[in-house]
Order: sequence, then structure tokens, then C-alpha cells
Amino acid sequence: MAHYNICLDVGGTKVLGAIFNENDEIIFRLKKRSTSRGTGSADVEQVIVDVVEEMIASSGIDKSEIHAIASCAPGVIDQDRGVVLFTPNLPWRDYDIRSAMMQRFGVPFFVGNDVNLGVLGEHEYGAAKGYNNVVGFFVGTGMGGGLILNGELFTGNQCKAAEYGHMILDPKGPKCNCGQRGCLEAYSSKTGMTNYIKKQIAKGRETMMADAVSEGVFRSKKLKKAVAAGDPVACEAVDRACHWLAVATGSMINTLSPDLVLYGGGVIEAMGNVFLEKVLAELDQYCLPTIRSTVEVKTAALGDDSILYGDLALIHAGRYL
Amino acid sequence: MAHYNICLDVGGTKVLGAIFNENDEIIFRLKKRSTSRGTGSADVEQVIVDVVEEMIASSGIDKSEIHAIASCAPGVIDQDRGVVLFTPNLPWRDYDIRSAMMQRFGVPFFVGNDVNLGVLGEHEYGAAKGYNNVVGFFVGTGMGGGLILNGELFTGNQCKAAEYGHMILDPKGPKCNCGQRGCLEAYSSKTGMTNYIKKQIAKGRETMMADAVSEGVFRSKKLKKAVAAGDPVACEAVDRACHWLAVATGSMINTLSPDLVLYGGGVIEAMGNVFLEKVLAELDQYCLPTIRSTVEVKTAALGDDSILYGDLALIHAGRYL
Repeated sequence: MAHYNICLDVGGTKVLGAIFNENDEIIFRLKKRSTSRGTGSADVEQVIVDVVEEMIASSGIDKSEIHAIASCAPGVIDQDRGVVLFTPNLPWRDYDIRSAMMQRFGVPFFVGNDVNLGVLGEHEYGAAKGYNNVVGFFVGTGMGGGLILNGELFTGNQCKAAEYGHMILDPKGPKCNCGQRGCLEAYSSKTGMTNYIKKQIAKGRETMMADAVSEGVFRSKKLKKAVAAGDPVACEAVDRACHWLAVATGSMINTLSPDLVLYGGGVIEAMGNVFLEKVLAELDQYCLPTIRSTVEVKTAALGDDSILYGDLALIHAGRYL
Repeated sequence: MAHYNICLDVGGTKVLGAIFNENDEIIFRLKKRSTSRGTGSADVEQVIVDVVEEMIASSGIDKSEIHAIASCAPGVIDQDRGVVLFTPNLPWRDYDIRSAMMQRFGVPFFVGNDVNLGVLGEHEYGAAKGYNNVVGFFVGTGMGGGLILNGELFTGNQCKAAEYGHMILDPKGPKCNCGQRGCLEAYSSKTGMTNYIKKQIAKGRETMMADAVSEGVFRSKKLKKAVAAGDPVACEAVDRACHWLAVATGSMINTLSPDLVLYGGGVIEAMGNVFLEKVLAELDQYCLPTIRSTVEVKTAALGDDSILYGDLALIHAGRYL
């Protein structure tokens, strides 16, 4: 009998989905659905259930052919209980997503942190395949981290590891949403760059990014366009982001002696080469040469699919993470 | 037949040794011997051979009863070949210590990085026993790191991991011996504190530490005395060291979500409580609260013996590291 795995990418504002066959090929895709931000945890659960039902119906597979379902969640997950402890952008607190989904669909359900699964997906199916120790930086609205150590996803105590987006780069630096000051995220994420750009606008400077930041965090394409046009404020924001990303990358290289540093996420997808070039121009001075000499640096290969492939890897590992 | 393990702590200036019986009890100790810094690699090898011979003769054990020998080396070790690649304070470059020792004594020989083995010793026999993920900081002339991840020593690519003593805390900060600027080591090690104190002396300030730093790095006891007496320059050096150690510790906690942060090394042995108190007073503001909540902080328990116990753990693991 054919069997299928249903994989979901649940974010703060949207759900993506894919159905994989037993050869790990995507046979069906569900495009973005809103997660109706701001509603209760039961509503978000209903959105996910609806999405899975819709995927089954539209793809034409039979419910009995579903082998497992996996999803990421944008937050802190208790690996033993399969419980979402905390999600800054979804109304889930101590939410037992595994029980809810297993009860609803009667198949194993796996859940992991979004960026962890993105890096895992890249490690099993993408740019990080074959690398034993990988430090991943995912640059989006926030700055996510994911670690592959000794060939496996490293999750630390209660799956809370890899928050080096909140590594302190300057204890007197700009405030971060996390409450600390001068985190990597406060400089090098879209939020950090948006805040920098807004500050320049407040100083009376002109920039093509004014509209893009007027209602919150800009879209990566807007930044790409502004940088390509040589907009000084946009270029400064990117230079600053890359400078601190290089410093943080150096520290992570010295800390873990990885085989690979992998950059992914929306910003990297939109303008990976720009970032990579700037980071590489500075990186050497922040690493011990003997350690730097055995590290490769790459951008992610799977784009929006990295988390979906990470879900799939989680199912194959058969471990509740 | 009785069997014994010979364990060595080879540093930049001295060798310590102990013989363990099959119950992991120390039955003989060899006090410090000089490694005759500055001489050739063959001379240092001869010192080690002499030390082992002396230990066998003085303890009265029979050569046929030696099960294995293990040692640390203060540098970068190639785990597959058992070769010391580089030691900043000993004349070893690509030195095949394993072959040399196995040829000489005819028993298995294990070698690992000094701080890695110190943390391993604390994990198997000391303050870190039972903790699954441990971040160790060893504060001495330099700032050493050692990581236990998923219950095992984490060594990274070519055993070069855990150099977070060279994590960048300020890219414009003071020069470090490693060539970078603003490393943790440049602030929080004895070298970093010595440089700070010398700078104050150069500015014309008076300090009880003047003699202690006149011929290089001070001895920990001198610092303890000066701080106890309230010497302003000594107190500032310690405050600065602890501030940056707290920042770096916070970043490591956010990065790895460990169960335990362990402080060891000569400075901590001499004045652990002073350091621990100051670091703990600042630490919370540099960690995400959800991650901080599951981390304990301790000082090492085995003192000068931590590396010897780490050697023993390496022998028991039976792995060439």
C-alpha cells in the first residue's frame, strides 16, 4: 500500500504544506493559508486541522494511506511531551499539539522548532547534506539558529538550544524584542534592519525604504531593490547587519569548529550573494585561522521547502522532538 | 592481575602525574616536573618518558601491570591520528605523540586537549557528573573551554571545538594573543587582567599588583590578596573580567541551552566565590529567561586533578581523542 507523509510549516502568520510519497517526492503542495493571528489556540488548531483535511481531499490520497504528520512551530517545544511551550507570535502556551493531532488523525505526529527543522531539512536533503557539524543562521523577521552536531540535530535542554540569534554582541547595543540589548537579532534580522532604517528616517534622512518600513518589518524584495539602487540608508543597514553577522559567525566557528556555516531564510533567499560576500569579506578576522581553515560557508538550497523537508526528516528519524 | 592507568597533565611549563588502580583510585602522585620550555620537541618527549619511568619506579608497580597511559596536551590535537597539531606554549608541531609513546611503553596511549579533558574529568568524576550538556570555562593564563553535549565530550571538526575563549565580545576591543581583538580571553583570563593592570600602572596608578605583573602574568594568589585588601586596580580588573565572562556565559547559554555552566581553572580555584558572585549578579540580563531557568552554575570540584581524571575517562571510553 502506498504511504504518504504530510508535512506542515506553521509560522506566525501562515501555514504551508506538502505531501511526500514513500520516495520522499512531493506529490502535492498546499500554498499559504493564514493562521489568523491573534485568535485563540483552538482557532489555530482548527486552521491546521482544516489545512490537513484540505490537503487530503485535494490530493486525492486516502486517509488510511497517511503514515505520519509533522509540523514545525515557531517557538520553544518540549521534546518529551510534544508540547509547544511558548510561541511569541501564536497564542500557544503549553499547547499539547501532539495529542490534539494524534487524536484527530490517528497517526504519529511530530513537532519541532521551525529553524531547527529548516536546518535539519537542509542537512538531510539540501545544502548541508554530508556535513557532520553545521551552524545554521536563518535571517528573517528574527534571527533563527539551528545546529547539527555529530550528524544530528542538537536541541539542548528542553529543545531550547541554538538561540544564538540572541548572542550578545554589545551589552550596550540596541534593545531586542527578547528583552536583552545588542543581540545579533537586533542588528542583523529584518527587525534589526527595520529599526535602524526607522531611526535614520527619524533623523530626517531620505530613503527608498520609507514606505517599506512604515507598517512594520519590510519585505525582503524591497530591501533588495533599494540596495541595488544604491540607497544609502538601505546599504548602511545591510552593511551593519553583515558586519555583526560576521562577528557572530566567527564566534560560533570558534565555539563549535563546524564543517559548515549555512545561511538561509527570507533575506538570504532574496539577497544571499550580497550578504555572503559582505560576511566573507570580514569573517576571517573573527576566527582562529586553524579553525577557519576547515569551515565551508554556503547558502541554503531548499528555500521555502527547508522546513517541510525537516518535518520529513523528523518523521524518518521516528523521534519525538 | 592488578592493572593500572598512568595519567599525565602536560602543560606549557610543567607535568603532573597520577597512577590510578582498577577502582579509579589514585595510588601514586607525581608532583610538578618542569617541561623545560623552549627546548625541542624531542626534549619534551624525553621529559614525559622520564616522568612515566619515574612514576613506575617510585610507585613500585610492574611495567606489565600498566593498562594504558593518557595525557593532555595544551593545544590542538588531531583525534584520528593522535597527533598534536599545534601547541602555542610547547615546541610541538604535527607531533605524533601516540606513536612515540606506544612504541616506548607498548600500551595504548590516549591524548586530548587539556581543557577538554578537564571538563571531561569533571563530568565523569566531579562537579558536572550527571549533567547532559555542560559548558565549561577554565580561567587561567588563557581562557579555555570544554563542552559536554548529549553526555559526551564534543570536539568538533579535528578536535578544534570549544574555543569560545576566543568568542568576540568587542571587535574594537583589546588585542588578544590569538590575533583577534576583544576576545573573552583578552578580558577575563589572567593575561587579560594582567594587561589591564599594566595599562593602569602605565597611567601612573598605584597598585599592590605592580610586582606581580612585572614579569608577565600574575599568580592567582596575588590577585586574591589584592582584591581582599580592596586594591582598586585589582578590583577593577576582576570586575571587568567578570562582566565579560557573564556576557560570554549568557551567549553560550542562549546558544546551547546547557544544563550546567562550570567554572574552573587556577583563578577560579583561588577565588571562585568572588568570580561566581559577580558573574551571577549580571548573568540573567544576558540570557533568555526561558533558557536561563534550566541552567545551573557551579565551580569545578577536582582542582588540579580534573585533567588527570579526564585522562582516565578517555582511557575508559577507549577512544582515541
